[in-house]
Amino acid sequence: MTLRIALAQIAARVGDIDGNVDRVLDAWRRAADQGADLVVFTELTTTGYPPEDLLLKPEFVAANLDAVHRMAAEGPRGTAAIVGYVGTAEGDLVHEDPAVSAGPAVASAADQELTNSAAVLCDGEVVATYDKLRLPNYGVFDEARYFTPVDRPLVVSIAGVPVGVTVCEDLWIEPGPLGRAADAGARVIANLNASPYHRGKRADRERWAATHAERDGTWVAYVNVVGGQDDVVFDGDSFLIGPDGRVRARAAQFREDLVVVDVPVDPIEVDAEVAVRGAGDASRPVVRHEDLPRLDPVGEVWHALVRATRDYCHENGFRDALIGLSGGIDSAVVAAVAADALGADHVTGVLMPSPYSSDHSVSDAEALAGALGMPTETLHIGRPLEAVGDVLGDLVITGFDREDGQQPGVAYENLQARLRGLLLMALSNETGAIVLTTGNKSEYAVGYATLYGDMAGGFAPLKDVPKLLVYELARWRNANPAPFDGDADGEVIPVSTIDKPPSAELRPDQRDDDSLPPYEVLDAIVEGYVEQLRSIADIVAEGIADEDVVRRIVQLIERAEFKRRQAAPGPKVTTRAFGRDRRVPMTSGWNN
Amino acid sequence: MTLRIALAQIAARVGDIDGNVDRVLDAWRRAADQGADLVVFTELTTTGYPPEDLLLKPEFVAANLDAVHRMAAEGPRGTAAIVGYVGTAEGDLVHEDPAVSAGPAVASAADQELTNSAAVLCDGEVVATYDKLRLPNYGVFDEARYFTPVDRPLVVSIAGVPVGVTVCEDLWIEPGPLGRAADAGARVIANLNASPYHRGKRADRERWAATHAERDGTWVAYVNVVGGQDDVVFDGDSFLIGPDGRVRARAAQFREDLVVVDVPVDPIEVDAEVAVRGAGDASRPVVRHEDLPRLDPVGEVWHALVRATRDYCHENGFRDALIGLSGGIDSAVVAAVAADALGADHVTGVLMPSPYSSDHSVSDAEALAGALGMPTETLHIGRPLEAVGDVLGDLVITGFDREDGQQPGVAYENLQARLRGLLLMALSNETGAIVLTTGNKSEYAVGYATLYGDMAGGFAPLKDVPKLLVYELARWRNANPAPFDGDADGEVIPVSTIDKPPSAELRPDQRDDDSLPPYEVLDAIVEGYVEQLRSIADIVAEGIADEDVVRRIVQLIERAEFKRRQAAPGPKVTTRAFGRDRRVPMTSGWNN
Repeated sequence: MTLRIALAQIAARVGDIDGNVDRVLDAWRRAADQGADLVVFTELTTTGYPPEDLLLKPEFVAANLDAVHRMAAEGPRGTAAIVGYVGTAEGDLVHEDPAVSAGPAVASAADQELTNSAAVLCDGEVVATYDKLRLPNYGVFDEARYFTPVDRPLVVSIAGVPVGVTVCEDLWIEPGPLGRAADAGARVIANLNASPYHRGKRADRERWAATHAERDGTWVAYVNVVGGQDDVVFDGDSFLIGPDGRVRARAAQFREDLVVVDVPVDPIEVDAEVAVRGAGDASRPVVRHEDLPRLDPVGEVWHALVRATRDYCHENGFRDALIGLSGGIDSAVVAAVAADALGADHVTGVLMPSPYSSDHSVSDAEALAGALGMPTETLHIGRPLEAVGDVLGDLVITGFDREDGQQPGVAYENLQARLRGLLLMALSNETGAIVLTTGNKSEYAVGYATLYGDMAGGFAPLKDVPKLLVYELARWRNANPAPFDGDADGEVIPVSTIDKPPSAELRPDQRDDDSLPPYEVLDAIVEGYVEQLRSIADIVAEGIADEDVVRRIVQLIERAEFKRRQAAPGPKVTTRAFGRDRRVPMTSGWNN
Repeated sequence: MTLRIALAQIAARVGDIDGNVDRVLDAWRRAADQGADLVVFTELTTTGYPPEDLLLKPEFVAANLDAVHRMAAEGPRGTAAIVGYVGTAEGDLVHEDPAVSAGPAVASAADQELTNSAAVLCDGEVVATYDKLRLPNYGVFDEARYFTPVDRPLVVSIAGVPVGVTVCEDLWIEPGPLGRAADAGARVIANLNASPYHRGKRADRERWAATHAERDGTWVAYVNVVGGQDDVVFDGDSFLIGPDGRVRARAAQFREDLVVVDVPVDPIEVDAEVAVRGAGDASRPVVRHEDLPRLDPVGEVWHALVRATRDYCHENGFRDALIGLSGGIDSAVVAAVAADALGADHVTGVLMPSPYSSDHSVSDAEALAGALGMPTETLHIGRPLEAVGDVLGDLVITGFDREDGQQPGVAYENLQARLRGLLLMALSNETGAIVLTTGNKSEYAVGYATLYGDMAGGFAPLKDVPKLLVYELARWRNANPAPFDGDADGEVIPVSTIDKPPSAELRPDQRDDDSLPPYEVLDAIVEGYVEQLRSIADIVAEGIADEDVVRRIVQLIERAEFKRRQAAPGPKVTTRAFGRDRRVPMTSGWNN
């Protein structure tokens, strides 16, 4: 026998409960039109992920319960659906209490025991519910803050096939809820996910799914949400894996998708807790999604940045963006990401040369803007810089050609960066365009970005991208067609921008490697210390650099935490990003 | 019989393990000198609280275990001590494994099961350990991210008196670990805390302690850490409560303290798990700390702000601070807090008048600085403002006396605020002084502070102080002597600053109430929505304001979340502060 199953990889939005109901109904109807017996949605479909402290509001939880009932009532008959939602001890959806769907049934959410749950909907009814057992509470996850775990497997017979229902991290333990569901007879496991992207994560997901599938002889349908949400981005990349551990179907990466596929299952008799009819019309033709090619490792990051940037901007009401173009690699990559995310005509490059800017800073920026097809403005900061210097007088040393021969320090460098931030923000306030910041992870690590200067802005696409990966991204974009909404192909990032030595150009003849080790060394130290939690001694023992170099970089990393706390959000793409993913004290006596 | 007990209210610092060992040994020796049988320290004494992701580093955890052994070895003989530390399943301190104190015993902390523990030290040995059961994971707390709960009560016989050992939140459940320890015979309960201050919290702590004491007929020694740590401040305020529920001794508020007191206990025979000698010399005289008067509710907040500001500055290496003085109430209160925290000669007031500044903005600021005895600088922003306006040309409308008759908008207002931020940061970079920001909670709530403008700085003393409380604080300081390091008494905040209508002075004749409801209404809406999680409907039903006003303010609050994410830290003083205490998405479709 066959179960026709649809993987509904939707872009559920945080807090947009009504919109999420519409997204579910739309995908559900399309799945029904293709004869699906079952359509599997994503984790916390109703609320989006992560809803954070919205969960403390009783009205929000009540609206989410009401949404499940609306989906059940309005969904197409004959095709079952599994949706994620927030459960409450009081609101048992199956034995429905009218008080629940009518409005808040509890006085205070803080006292409410909530569950991260999935509901099986069929023929107008909520037929069964499942509550997540394994609640992640590390990295970017805070589920123990909100949810109570429940250890109760669920198997539902859909069109005669016993289907086990599980949620996300339930997959990441062995045998866990998947094994328990298989023990109870499940032949197909639905696993609803909100799994944020980072490099290499697919291999972990598939390895876990294959482990369960091979152990139990089950099919595993892994369905992940898609889209950017503040400092994470969900890649979708849903898949169906067979009992042999092989991937049989895949959904798109970083885009909404609906994959309908027939799963062959030997007929068996199972005493499932709940049985629903499942009237999918399997005689209809189905487009089989075999093991489609995936993006290469760098292209994957490019798509992550573009999707994250687009969703952050659009979902916060920004159609247009502003970027300070220095002629350097970081602002060039951010501009190309923004052009792909928003369309080049929605991105303005702002050139803000100073007396210390090189000629190529302007020519490279103009070449980039020309290749991308984006408009530019040029604002010279020389006169405001002088006016500020005059006001500061003897209090701050400004200018490199002073009669007293004194040399300015970091204050004057930051002043230039902050004047640029001020000009960008003035344009932003006047036009309503968002400023995208251009700093990369290597800079944020050691504090080489200027607070309120080049760190000023609403979103930081490269915040979790180390410098060497910025170069890889530039080369990838030059060699590949524009993804998403981008329309500029070919060598959009000037080769001279890629080839020249990196410099902040805040003093004459400045270069990054005047005061930092080469990026090959710096990035390796940052990866070891920040991502892998290695100690100074470990990093030295690996031969990455001498102890004095490692110790100095680690001190820079620790001391820059106060800056990063004031940084704009940016999408996580590595195994440990700054921000929500890495929570360290600013005030700390530990330095190792 | 009598147990002479010392409440060691120390200022353990996060990450400063060696320093915390010294703090413990110093207090322990002083307690021994006063003949104490037992000295009780604070939660996570070794690591400080909260250590956050430092706990993921194996070297950090190993250093903390080593610290417990050093304390035991170096502590005075005869007096027992209870200290907080991070426990590991591998590192059983009592049956000591040499591998543990010799260095990291595990390869990866991420896989390590950690406990929030307390160790009983006596006569050179770790004689017993206890692991916290109740791990708070709400508000500012993230203990489920790091620790595993353990349900195993501990009673130790010290000088013949059975003492139960518990940690912090263990107190906040009934009967819980305190009841369990009493059932096992404990007559005195030691409760080690790291309990952040907020208004009114003492009543909750004492109510819980009294509930246990009266129920079980026990004495409860509540010992809390003291000092500021990033966005929380610990008030100390330790106490000893008797079996009748009455407070018998109190430690200082917001200061280190060591309180030694005799606890009378009827002799009983108890089969305690561990018995230590306890050789305290009870014949020595003891200063009894009866129920000393506490600070009044506003003075308590003043002390919280001063202690938080002092510790943030000093522990991050800043001896000096800069504050932009506008002549308004917020900057005046911040200046007075800073003067009390750092000494007036370590605080510079920077006056930055614009063409739209009133005369009284300068005269009030000068009066304040004179009364506090702090130096000032005056930097006129008119010319840089013009120079920036010239560069922006037609792109941004600047100036109120334009020939084309156009009126500038928020861009020009923010430009003024940002030029001031830029000047302050230039002075900060040149001198190494920290900039203290002046925004209050009401402003941060509705987004009326300017990002990179008056929000620019390293610490925000008033971040969790609603505007009406700012006024109360000003009046309190004028009526009370200078606390801590302050030396200016009397009316330091000019009455005209308190009495004049609040204005940002970013356009002619501007007043806050041009665009906001009166602060009596605004603060009530913010308190209802942010602190109490009430819905718009609830707030309207309470009669605070009409629905359109409440809805507009709630929208402003939601939309300003992106700004608050880039705000400097400031100390929590209410039941729910912005930041770590209130975690809401920036991108959200929910608006209720």
